[in-house]
Amino acid sequence: MTDQNVKPLVSDFSLAYGRQRSAIRELFEYGKQRAREVGSASIFDFSIGNPSVPPPPQINEAFFSLLKECDPLTLHGYTSAPGDLEVRKAIVDQINREYGCEYDEKSIYVTCGAAAALSITFRALSITGERNEFITLAPHFPEYVCYVEGQGAKLVVVLPKLPDFGISLEGIETAITPATRGIILNSPNNPTGRIYKTEELEALADLLHRKARDIGRPIYIVSDEPYRELVYEGLTTPFIPNIYKNTIVCYSYSKAFSMPGERIGYALVHPEADAARDICDAIAGSARSLGYVCAPSLVQQVVRLCATVKPDLASYDLNRRTMYEGLTAVGYNCVKPEGAFYMFIEAPGGDAQAFSDYARLNYNLLIVPSDSFECPGYLRVSYCVSLERIKSSMPLFDMCLKSFKREMKIK
Amino acid sequence: MTDQNVKPLVSDFSLAYGRQRSAIRELFEYGKQRAREVGSASIFDFSIGNPSVPPPPQINEAFFSLLKECDPLTLHGYTSAPGDLEVRKAIVDQINREYGCEYDEKSIYVTCGAAAALSITFRALSITGERNEFITLAPHFPEYVCYVEGQGAKLVVVLPKLPDFGISLEGIETAITPATRGIILNSPNNPTGRIYKTEELEALADLLHRKARDIGRPIYIVSDEPYRELVYEGLTTPFIPNIYKNTIVCYSYSKAFSMPGERIGYALVHPEADAARDICDAIAGSARSLGYVCAPSLVQQVVRLCATVKPDLASYDLNRRTMYEGLTAVGYNCVKPEGAFYMFIEAPGGDAQAFSDYARLNYNLLIVPSDSFECPGYLRVSYCVSLERIKSSMPLFDMCLKSFKREMKIK
Repeated sequence: MTDQNVKPLVSDFSLAYGRQRSAIRELFEYGKQRAREVGSASIFDFSIGNPSVPPPPQINEAFFSLLKECDPLTLHGYTSAPGDLEVRKAIVDQINREYGCEYDEKSIYVTCGAAAALSITFRALSITGERNEFITLAPHFPEYVCYVEGQGAKLVVVLPKLPDFGISLEGIETAITPATRGIILNSPNNPTGRIYKTEELEALADLLHRKARDIGRPIYIVSDEPYRELVYEGLTTPFIPNIYKNTIVCYSYSKAFSMPGERIGYALVHPEADAARDICDAIAGSARSLGYVCAPSLVQQVVRLCATVKPDLASYDLNRRTMYEGLTAVGYNCVKPEGAFYMFIEAPGGDAQAFSDYARLNYNLLIVPSDSFECPGYLRVSYCVSLERIKSSMPLFDMCLKSFKREMKIK
Repeated sequence: MTDQNVKPLVSDFSLAYGRQRSAIRELFEYGKQRAREVGSASIFDFSIGNPSVPPPPQINEAFFSLLKECDPLTLHGYTSAPGDLEVRKAIVDQINREYGCEYDEKSIYVTCGAAAALSITFRALSITGERNEFITLAPHFPEYVCYVEGQGAKLVVVLPKLPDFGISLEGIETAITPATRGIILNSPNNPTGRIYKTEELEALADLLHRKARDIGRPIYIVSDEPYRELVYEGLTTPFIPNIYKNTIVCYSYSKAFSMPGERIGYALVHPEADAARDICDAIAGSARSLGYVCAPSLVQQVVRLCATVKPDLASYDLNRRTMYEGLTAVGYNCVKPEGAFYMFIEAPGGDAQAFSDYARLNYNLLIVPSDSFECPGYLRVSYCVSLERIKSSMPLFDMCLKSFKREMKIK
C-alpha cells in the first residue's frame, strides 16, 4: 500500500480524543515524574481535583457490613438497569426530604458517575438527524466538550458576568438558537467555587421560558452537581429543579464521599418536566446503547446505606481559608470560593500559561492555566491537599509572584 | 401547539431502545411477578444468565483485605483512564503465562465490563463519515445490535453452519463488503454453548486475510469472551489472537467471578495488530467520549489480586449434564454445550415463541425463544440455577413436550 492509498483504520474523532492529553492531567503527570526525581516534599501539586479528606466513616462500615451480611450472588449480581429499586428509593427519599420535592423511583437513573449521567443525558436530548447544541458558561469543566461532542452535539460556550463569574443572561440569550437543547450549569462551580444564587437562577428560568416559546421547544437545564454538598460558611446550593422544572440533575458521589474511582452517581428528571417520561426512557436507551448495563452493584448498596451521610467539610474549609488568606495577603487576586475545592486566581500579567510555566519551573508549584476552561487569564489552584502543603507553599507563592513581576516588569 | 407542530424532544433512537424490552428480561420479570402470585417454588425460571455459583472464596477475601489494609483515598480514588497500572500488569501477566503471548500494559484498557469494552471497540473501529459494518454469527447475544448501532454502525447477521452451529465461511464471505470493520465472535457461545475449534478459526483467519486484501483494509475480529473459562470435559477455548493477530478481545469477569453487577472487564489489542497503537488510542478516546472515566477502582484491585483465580466449574458441569441428559431422554433435540451455561434446544414443531408461551402458561417453565438471537426455531435454557430446580423441572419438561405435541398434532 502506498501512502496515497492509506485508508483510516480507526475513528478520527476517537483517535484525537485518545491522544489529546488534558492540561490538568499533563501537569499532574509532570508532578509525579518530578516527585520521583527530586522527592515529593519538593513538589507542590495543586493541579488535580482528587478529594483529600478520607471518606466518611459510614462508607467503610457500609462496605464491611454488606460484604459480611449479604448473599454474594445478590450483592454482586446484575441490578435492574436504572439501578436497584431500594437504592433508587433511598436516593429519592433523601432528595425529597432535603429539598421538599416529590420524586419517585422512576425519576432516577443510577449511573457510573456524573460523567456517565451527563453523556447519556446529552445523548437522550439530542434529536436524531438535527443539529443539537448545549450551552455552558465559561469557565467550565474541560471534559464537557468531549461528552457533548461524543454524542454528536456541539458545545457553545458563553463568557461569565464579571467580576464575580455570574450567569450572563445576555450571553446566553445571544447563544440560544433553534438547535439549543440545554444549558449546562455547574454549581458550585469548578473552577471558580461560585454558587449560583436563587435570584440569578430565577432570572435564567424566566429567560429560558421566554426563549423556549420563541424556538418552539423546551430548553433543559443539565445541572452538573458533584460539588452540591461541598459548600462553606453555612451556604446551601439552591436546588435548581425547584426553580426550573425542565432540569435534569447529574450528580456524583465522588466528591462528597471521597470515592471518585468508584463511579457512582445518577441522572434525575423532574416528574413535571416537559416530556419527562420520554426523557427517562431516552436516558435508559442512551445508557443501554453506550454499554452501561448497570452501575456497579456493591457501591450502589453503599449509597443506599449512606444516602443521607454528609461530607466532613471542616478540613476543606480550613484549607480554603488558609489558601485564600495566604494568597490574597501576598497580592494575588481571586473571588473567595463559596463551594467545591478550587480557587480561581487572576493570572499575574494576564498570561495564565506563562505564569503556570514560571511557577512550575522555578518553584515546583503546579497550578492549572485556565485556557482549557475557555476563560483565559486565570489559574486554578486545587486546595484538596493537606493543610501542611498549603502552609508550606505560601512562601513560594509569595516569592513566585514577586520574582515573576520583577522579571516580566509588571507592577 | 397542535399535533402537526409537535417537535420531538428526545432522541428517537434512544427512546426506542429505552422502551423496547428484551424478550429475556420480559420473561424474567414475568417470572418474578408470577413467583409473588403462586410462590417461587412453582416457577421454573430458566430465562436469565445470572451466575448461580457463588464467587470464588478469594474474591471476598480480596474485598476484605483491600478495605482493611489500603488507604481509602487511594483505594477509592481515580485510577488512570486505562486502569491502574498494577492492575493492567497483573492481567496481562496472567494472559501471557496462560496463552504464551507478549502483551504489555499498553495493550489493555480496563473497562466497566464487556458491554463497555464492546461499545468502545465498535466506536474506535468505526471510520468517521463512512458506513461501518460489523458481522456476527447467529445465534448471537441480542444486545450486540444495540451496542453496534449505538456507535452509528450496522450489525450484519450471518446464519451458522448447521447442525453444529459452526462458523459459516460462505456466509461470512458473502456478507463482507468494503464497509466491514470487524467480525464479532462469541466463544463459548451464548446461547449454543459451542466453542469454535482451532481449525475453524484458522480457516476464518485465512478468509479474513484474503478479504482484507480485496477490500484494502484489515478486518478485525472482536472476540467477546465472557465465558472463556466456563468450559467442560477438559476442553479449552482457543485464544483467538494466537490464531489471528487483528483481534481485539473483549473480556468480562462477570461470569467467571460471579459478579456481573460489578462491571469489570477489559479490551485487549494484539500489539502486532494492524494499527495497534492507533486502535489503543482510539479505544481510549472512545471511552473518554462516552463518559467512562475509569473502571470501578475497588473492583479493579480485586481483579489485580485474583487475576489467576479460576471459577468452580463442577456445579455448572453437573447442571449441564443433568439437564442435557434429562432433556434428550424425553425427546428434546439439542447440541451438547461445551461451554457457557446455556442449552440451545430445537423448538418442538419449529415455532419457538409458541412453545415458549405454551411452556410458560401451562407448566410455569420459563425458556427463551431464539427469535431475538436472530436464529428462529430454538429455545435457550439457562442452566445457571440450582441442581434441585433442574431435577424437579424434568417431569414438567417431559409432560410439556408430550402435551404440546398432542395438542399441536406434531409427531
